[in-house]
Amino acid sequence: MESELIARLRERIPPHPLLRIGPGDDAAVLRLAEVDECAMTVDLLTDHVDFELDRVDPRRVGRKALAVNLSDLAAMAARPLAGVVAVALPRVGGLELAIQLFEGMIPLAERFSLAIAGGDTNSWDGPLVISITLLGAVTARGPLLRSGAKPGDRILVTGAFGGSILGRHLDFEPRVDEALLLAERYELHAGIDASDGLSVDLNHLVEESGCGAVINLDAVPIADDARRLAERLDDGSTALDHALGDGEDFELILAAPPDAAARMLAEQPLGIPLGEVGQFIAEPGLWQTDRRHGRRKLTSRGWEHRFD
Amino acid sequence: MESELIARLRERIPPHPLLRIGPGDDAAVLRLAEVDECAMTVDLLTDHVDFELDRVDPRRVGRKALAVNLSDLAAMAARPLAGVVAVALPRVGGLELAIQLFEGMIPLAERFSLAIAGGDTNSWDGPLVISITLLGAVTARGPLLRSGAKPGDRILVTGAFGGSILGRHLDFEPRVDEALLLAERYELHAGIDASDGLSVDLNHLVEESGCGAVINLDAVPIADDARRLAERLDDGSTALDHALGDGEDFELILAAPPDAAARMLAEQPLGIPLGEVGQFIAEPGLWQTDRRHGRRKLTSRGWEHRFD
Repeated sequence: MESELIARLRERIPPHPLLRIGPGDDAAVLRLAEVDECAMTVDLLTDHVDFELDRVDPRRVGRKALAVNLSDLAAMAARPLAGVVAVALPRVGGLELAIQLFEGMIPLAERFSLAIAGGDTNSWDGPLVISITLLGAVTARGPLLRSGAKPGDRILVTGAFGGSILGRHLDFEPRVDEALLLAERYELHAGIDASDGLSVDLNHLVEESGCGAVINLDAVPIADDARRLAERLDDGSTALDHALGDGEDFELILAAPPDAAARMLAEQPLGIPLGEVGQFIAEPGLWQTDRRHGRRKLTSRGWEHRFD
Repeated sequence: MESELIARLRERIPPHPLLRIGPGDDAAVLRLAEVDECAMTVDLLTDHVDFELDRVDPRRVGRKALAVNLSDLAAMAARPLAGVVAVALPRVGGLELAIQLFEGMIPLAERFSLAIAGGDTNSWDGPLVISITLLGAVTARGPLLRSGAKPGDRILVTGAFGGSILGRHLDFEPRVDEALLLAERYELHAGIDASDGLSVDLNHLVEESGCGAVINLDAVPIADDARRLAERLDDGSTALDHALGDGEDFELILAAPPDAAARMLAEQPLGIPLGEVGQFIAEPGLWQTDRRHGRRKLTSRGWEHRFD
């Protein structure tokens, strides 16, 4: 099956200037003479955990598998270069499934000028597994890390949060261009993409940076999906709970010094909203505040809720 | 679980000069300023296909997952640089299993100066899946491709073939150093590693090179495992059948012009045997010959046999 898949993919995957050798040999060969530092990331997705193959178009699954990796490059403010795709396919219908997965990836790869360099195709008796590894070029500003946030830095976020399980977790836009633009024009101290949930990912930032953070609950941008999900579940969870805890938003969470943050907020240089949701502080831990209450520990409120 | 695994792996995985940022951020960051061309390869292994987790030490599984990828770099005559490891782990005992998998990988990574740059850890209800992606530096001689064999070139192979299922498919030595040494000292036209089986992989070489090949059956180096397997199966298959068809030998199959081949065979520059098993010809297809018969089509003789 693998040779037939490679033959059919060779027709579909466009040539790319980075690829000296593309799919079909023991390894791809990439021209990286212009690249000094390279971000390398892998995400593996499995059926029934990251998607439900019997309920969605496989093209959306393929697209998601690539998009979550692009989001990791965005979190480093790295420019996508090339990727390889490994799949474990069910034995029945595996070839057609693989073609559809790639059909979902290719438009996204083209949009970000990513070379699909090769892959590995396997059949087995288990559910679908897709593992994608991407390389990205770190820009002259250096990689954006989790560890650079300083007390006083503002917490900035792109877009809105919560309820991604209603569909956005498949069809989200990785914030690659946004991260590159912000990193080029403004001073950023740290960054992460929101995959585990706004509060959990913010916690990753403060743990790696050795500081704390206060979230202003009134300022958290709540996605319409979060409101719809809270209403639909009717289990006491609020839209804010979903915004803080659902995850798979794949928005950027950034630490920027006050001056740079103020400029970004005033200039709104992205085609999507950029908002401030709090600030980093010296005291470790995650804290919350709102218009009625002072600073107190951020409490977990039903963030495990998932829509089944 | 992922954060605990990362913490425990950070203790075990040695630092590496290539790693500006290692495991724990959204992506690793590699110093690649010295590298002009990079080989990139991925192999995904699944339980019950590539190994039987309930019958082998997980360290051997982890080692194999890395070794098959190193073998792909060897096939390109590329020097190992860095890799990322993605796993889908069973929910019960996943953390300990992951540690053991890495314990199997780390000594092999160290031996080949490979940086373990990062990974992705997932739990699910399915069997173990490991996907490893490696980067390798293409040397000044350029990558060794499948497509360069020319009529008249000799077919050279390292080591011996067949019966790897008796254990060698887990514990084989990837021929990285051998490939680098041969590519540096001698003229090589094409190469591949024997993963699907000597005859199948030789077929890949001739298809990509647009030529044919004649195997001298009397010259095929037969592994002791192949003899033991033929005896044990007692199904009419011969040791030679297993040498030609079993696969997972992970030896090198090379195309070299006659002069270079003669020098290599005389000098035997590797610590392991290097033998000639035939030559490439203009006429497409795979052919066989032996001391009693002239050239005829290579016949398939029970290559599907696997030891269960």
